Amino acid sequence: MNFCSHCGSNQLDCKVPAGDHVARYVCQVCGTVHYVNPKMVVGCLVVHEERVLLCRRAIEPRYGFWNLPTGFLESGETVEEGAIRETWEEARARVKVERLHSVYSLPHCDQIIIHFVAQLQETGIEAGPESLEVNFFAETEIPWDDMAFSSHRFALERYFENRLKPDKQTYLGSSCLRTS
Amino acid sequence: MNFCSHCGSNQLDCKVPAGDHVARYVCQVCGTVHYVNPKMVVGCLVVHEERVLLCRRAIEPRYGFWNLPTGFLESGETVEEGAIRETWEEARARVKVERLHSVYSLPHCDQIIIHFVAQLQETGIEAGPESLEVNFFAETEIPWDDMAFSSHRFALERYFENRLKPDKQTYLGSSCLRTS
Repeated sequence: MNFCSHCGSNQLDCKVPAGDHVARYVCQVCGTVHYVNPKMVVGCLVVHEERVLLCRRAIEPRYGFWNLPTGFLESGETVEEGAIRETWEEARARVKVERLHSVYSLPHCDQIIIHFVAQLQETGIEAGPESLEVNFFAETEIPWDDMAFSSHRFALERYFENRLKPDKQTYLGSSCLRTS
Repeated sequence: MNFCSHCGSNQLDCKVPAGDHVARYVCQVCGTVHYVNPKMVVGCLVVHEERVLLCRRAIEPRYGFWNLPTGFLESGETVEEGAIRETWEEARARVKVERLHSVYSLPHCDQIIIHFVAQLQETGIEAGPESLEVNFFAETEIPWDDMAFSSHRFALERYFENRLKPDKQTYLGSSCLRTS
């Protein structure tokens, strides 16, 4: 950040505002405090006939490596809506979210990744513009060494570890208040 | 947003960038795309002797109403660290996170609220600067009509509904990769 997005001044000071405890960019002209918050990343672990849907990345970072369909949550979306949209965009899969599966923090790059377990609602899948190919994999077929991200590997490992323990898989509370 | 925070230009266009599907502020001078993402809010449902910790708000919005200790996740934090920090700031309670409890989307104001069930690590509590008072409440004592936010009410209702069903309360996956 070089300029204040409110008044256009370049007189930004990085300091702890009164009553706060974290350094922020504060405009010395108009007083606007510029908060920087972690970003949410959401996706689905789509299960079909005991196989999991993976996409091979057609984009950087990690071009050519595999991931669960996952991407940045957009303004105006619930976490479930974002996960369903990303699954359509990357794998042209129409899914229904079943339950929350994992939450993974990446504090060094300010990202929080949430994965849901989801089921196919229609049988077709196809590579979207961000994928080279998409496919379903049984546990023994997962390309573990070619996974793009630790958070996706974590979600997969937890899924296969726990899939035979249904009493350990119930997630209680996810809801949404939409007032507009 | 009135000015580009990268180059200071006021020539911002609200349009869908190439390869995207959502309108963004795009600087017509330097080309920077300004993404606006939902913010994460994290907090704890602290349980002690079958009572839950609530704080009466000393700040707007909803001054004087009750909430679970909860606030915005900061850069560099895991979701659990943010929830523990907020619990200290609002109620001077030292807690240990036990499990994820609820995820609540507020798409109309771009917030996602995550609550964890937590346990006290030290017995003392005290109102922090953002609280008028703090106290533990049994289910029959909760000031339901004076709760500040629907997301906190949701978390409390789910907790009391399900506390006698331990097999329904196990959350599987929460982890963190910290590389710096």
